[in-house]
Amino acid sequence: MPENIGFIGLGGMGEPIAANLLAAGHKLKVYNRTASKAAPLKEKGATVVSHTADVGTAGGVVFTMVSDDRALEEICAAKPSFVERLGAGGVHVSLSTIAPATSKKLAEAHAKLGVDYVAAPVFGRPEAAAAAKLWICVSGPSASRERIRPLLASVGQRTFDFGEDAGAANIVKLCGNFMIASALETMAEAFALAEKNGVDPAGVADMLSATLFACPIYQGYGKFILQGDFEPARFRLALGLKDVNLALQTAAASEMPMPIASLMRDRMLAAMAKGRADWDWTAVALEAAESAGLRKALAR
Amino acid sequence: MPENIGFIGLGGMGEPIAANLLAAGHKLKVYNRTASKAAPLKEKGATVVSHTADVGTAGGVVFTMVSDDRALEEICAAKPSFVERLGAGGVHVSLSTIAPATSKKLAEAHAKLGVDYVAAPVFGRPEAAAAAKLWICVSGPSASRERIRPLLASVGQRTFDFGEDAGAANIVKLCGNFMIASALETMAEAFALAEKNGVDPAGVADMLSATLFACPIYQGYGKFILQGDFEPARFRLALGLKDVNLALQTAAASEMPMPIASLMRDRMLAAMAKGRADWDWTAVALEAAESAGLRKALAR
Amino acid sequence: MPENIGFIGLGGMGEPIAANLLAAGHKLKVYNRTASKAAPLKEKGATVVSHTADVGTAGGVVFTMVSDDRALEEICAAKPSFVERLGAGGVHVSLSTIAPATSKKLAEAHAKLGVDYVAAPVFGRPEAAAAAKLWICVSGPSASRERIRPLLASVGQRTFDFGEDAGAANIVKLCGNFMIASALETMAEAFALAEKNGVDPAGVADMLSATLFACPIYQGYGKFILQGDFEPARFRLALGLKDVNLALQTAAASEMPMPIASLMRDRMLAAMAKGRADWDWTAVALEAAESAGLRKALAR
Amino acid sequence: MPENIGFIGLGGMGEPIAANLLAAGHKLKVYNRTASKAAPLKEKGATVVSHTADVGTAGGVVFTMVSDDRALEEICAAKPSFVERLGAGGVHVSLSTIAPATSKKLAEAHAKLGVDYVAAPVFGRPEAAAAAKLWICVSGPSASRERIRPLLASVGQRTFDFGEDAGAANIVKLCGNFMIASALETMAEAFALAEKNGVDPAGVADMLSATLFACPIYQGYGKFILQGDFEPARFRLALGLKDVNLALQTAAASEMPMPIASLMRDRMLAAMAKGRADWDWTAVALEAAESAGLRKALAR
Repeated sequence: MPENIGFIGLGGMGEPIAANLLAAGHKLKVYNRTASKAAPLKEKGATVVSHTADVGTAGGVVFTMVSDDRALEEICAAKPSFVERLGAGGVHVSLSTIAPATSKKLAEAHAKLGVDYVAAPVFGRPEAAAAAKLWICVSGPSASRERIRPLLASVGQRTFDFGEDAGAANIVKLCGNFMIASALETMAEAFALAEKNGVDPAGVADMLSATLFACPIYQGYGKFILQGDFEPARFRLALGLKDVNLALQTAAASEMPMPIASLMRDRMLAAMAKGRADWDWTAVALEAAESAGLRKALAR
Repeated sequence: MPENIGFIGLGGMGEPIAANLLAAGHKLKVYNRTASKAAPLKEKGATVVSHTADVGTAGGVVFTMVSDDRALEEICAAKPSFVERLGAGGVHVSLSTIAPATSKKLAEAHAKLGVDYVAAPVFGRPEAAAAAKLWICVSGPSASRERIRPLLASVGQRTFDFGEDAGAANIVKLCGNFMIASALETMAEAFALAEKNGVDPAGVADMLSATLFACPIYQGYGKFILQGDFEPARFRLALGLKDVNLALQTAAASEMPMPIASLMRDRMLAAMAKGRADWDWTAVALEAAESAGLRKALAR
Repeated sequence: MPENIGFIGLGGMGEPIAANLLAAGHKLKVYNRTASKAAPLKEKGATVVSHTADVGTAGGVVFTMVSDDRALEEICAAKPSFVERLGAGGVHVSLSTIAPATSKKLAEAHAKLGVDYVAAPVFGRPEAAAAAKLWICVSGPSASRERIRPLLASVGQRTFDFGEDAGAANIVKLCGNFMIASALETMAEAFALAEKNGVDPAGVADMLSATLFACPIYQGYGKFILQGDFEPARFRLALGLKDVNLALQTAAASEMPMPIASLMRDRMLAAMAKGRADWDWTAVALEAAESAGLRKALAR
Repeated sequence: MPENIGFIGLGGMGEPIAANLLAAGHKLKVYNRTASKAAPLKEKGATVVSHTADVGTAGGVVFTMVSDDRALEEICAAKPSFVERLGAGGVHVSLSTIAPATSKKLAEAHAKLGVDYVAAPVFGRPEAAAAAKLWICVSGPSASRERIRPLLASVGQRTFDFGEDAGAANIVKLCGNFMIASALETMAEAFALAEKNGVDPAGVADMLSATLFACPIYQGYGKFILQGDFEPARFRLALGLKDVNLALQTAAASEMPMPIASLMRDRMLAAMAKGRADWDWTAVALEAAESAGLRKALAR
């Protein structure tokens, strides 16, 4: 059944997701800060609006895919807001990688207006988004999760359910991004060990990513690291740092240390200090290489 | 073509490997410190000898699978030694996880007696050894690598070649074990983050090991961690510490830091201090859990 | 020359500082959330007010010593506020340990009302405050720094000047507290090394704090650690964590890692997870002891 | 009472110590690998010998100050050795910074020849050695400690006693050097925080080393770091790394982690990778500066 869908945030991830929703036959109103990015969707039949509130239709669904917690909070608190426009029976599907605490806070505020908040952070790069191959974690009120299931099916290859707690899916997303960050450093240290001992790191990567670590992260990111393929960014290092910070803040709020996350935060800050905020986050691997005296070997 | 093969070290890994060589039709002389462990092989047709030197036949092949560098060096330096018995045209296939530097030193000493040293460390647990499903990394003189290829094919599912340098395959093995250790801590921190925030870590593990991290290490070890399945050990924590130490020593000798390896060494030392030397090395995950105040949740 | 002084925050540090200002002959209006704590000062001649704004006298001076950035920001933003009451020619002397960024923000807001903001964080425990032996770091407009010099002389043994930038003195304070935290862990590791090797850590502490490390931090805190003297808290562990977090946030905002600060944050979070938030922050030393399997030795 | 003293190792520390023993009126036989270094002592009356064994006189005392454990073990195991020459009633005063385990092993071997082994590692730089201002830690048989007390008094300003266990004094020395290394990194991080936030790190150093940290390490090493005074080395970074490694190995042998020592090892290895092995060990501070993007600021 076609839905009245709004979509805020047409960046590298948001645009292809919105395109897939449109392709699935839904009515789509879209908003982006930089309006020009909405043009391709307009051509395909989307309505482009000039205020975030205007993406909302009474009782409809709004997807948001924005850069960080603050951006999302501002949009939800705008006067008027798309949340008010959704009103009773509306659903806000929040795709952004944000703090679980932010999801919980928004869920409570939305509930007062009769709107359900569903956290639905996604794993995958823009190509995966375009191919509707994203992996999606969802949490929030079960009825709304049911309602949006077909919508998520049009944008991802599989949806994983994490229950009623609005923040739960965000926790999973933070775990995943933390684990990726850890894998980047781990590979960087292993590759440096190989290289400094006269063994081709590409051979090590090939062997391990064909066996023990035969999975997308080690296979895909391993290649980027070995090729020194850091620009243009597929996912900006500054955003990777943001996500590690979210994991650390969430951990701190629940009173627990995460030593590898702390290390990754330090590595990413050092990369920032060297002017690599806009490089791909795999460039964090250069820190291990440079500490080993191998800068020229791994980087451009 | 059947070979005259000697085998030293019939522990959890060595015994099934030797059995597979025997099953492949080779003549086998075996030695083990605790002689009783050789009984099953004797029944299948192996000759049991009472001195390490006696496993060697002139121009034959000897496999060794012993606990550490020192044990291997002592056996090779024994008077008489299996290396002398092998003599010109002999091949020593060294399966143990040891330092690359030890392999290089032994290779040089062997060469003086006309014996080729081939490093062939393996990845896989005893079940994989029994099923001839090991992954094997080899390095050493190419003619000898060719000669033993069919032997390795009887004990593993795939062999990966790392060239002439005797130590190269050991580097790869150390990289792999380091990466596993890092994955253990990474999962432990992620699981603790989930648990302390009300999300079932098993759900997180299921999602991530079905997608981004869909590979043996995250799938298999993740389960052990979540089930608190640490005894009996599949691979002793003390041995895991030995391997991380080998990685760190090799890194230090080539003048480079490995911060995650340092962290894992510290974690494993803390586990040793708590009396967990003989637990499975996945028990290192308890450190993250306990630092989070979650001891009861993850352990028995 | 006697000043009209207001004082907000009569905790363990604030109360003796206020008492010294009173003893120096100034007129004092005091405010504390828990009014009863103001009683001793009232007896000595202070005026107790019931709203923070009321401590301010036009053109006078107000000292604040509150728990954190948020508390200070709320007091300054109150309607009415003591800042408004001070008005043109007034000076706000901010003793709290807060972020440099908070000082800068407040300094700008104060300037619009004609009020000078002087950061004046202090080093020393309550006894030192009572004895007017504090060490004080100051930064802010030079005229106001001159004006309050005699006031600071009544509460501390020495004042150190860090120029015009409101946040500078806070940076120094964060550096100092970070360095103390690092010294706590450093001693804890050294003491554990001694103890586990059969050497009395008290002997090690005596030797080193009489020679290379003959300074208050190693002498004083070393004793607390060795005696397991963690309750009642002289300075709460939760506050120590707050300060390390401020250092890390300030470092992150300027794009740089602080690995030892990250380690100390992790150590303190582990201590929090174990329920030690209200213990003295020297109790962070228990983490090293416990990781060494020495819990019973060092703690109660 | 004048003693027959032998002295092995006339490096930057050994030479002035030997000179002070000579000046105190003892008979001195000296040995150094590079014989020319013995010339100044010869002029002052020392006998120069050409084999290490020849420094030993029956029942006399021999001091050794050599670069590492292996050098000392080789000298003691030489055939003939100075230990044999000392024989019953002789005392070996071991000044070198070595592993406690090495001291214990040597003490046992010496005992078989009737020789007492006294560990007497020293704190202080060459200038302090020349001025007889060293701080000395001693452990070993009490009678021999009594006997050499006047000798130590001629070379140091104070001696600290750590009992009968040969390795005890070495533990204290390793604790001390570890604590210095930690202080170097701690200052480096604090200075970088100040500098990146517009505060002169020299001002921070002045304030803190006049108050909380008013002790030789922070005062002296703080200056070297701030001045970028890393060459010529007062104490080579490679030797500093050796000492941190000794601490870590001793900790590992007693099953305990030392996270700050691990960090310092990693920092020093990174400095080695950059070719700084022969710089002063305070140059380890450059790692924090460079990670902060401040290389030009702190280094030459």
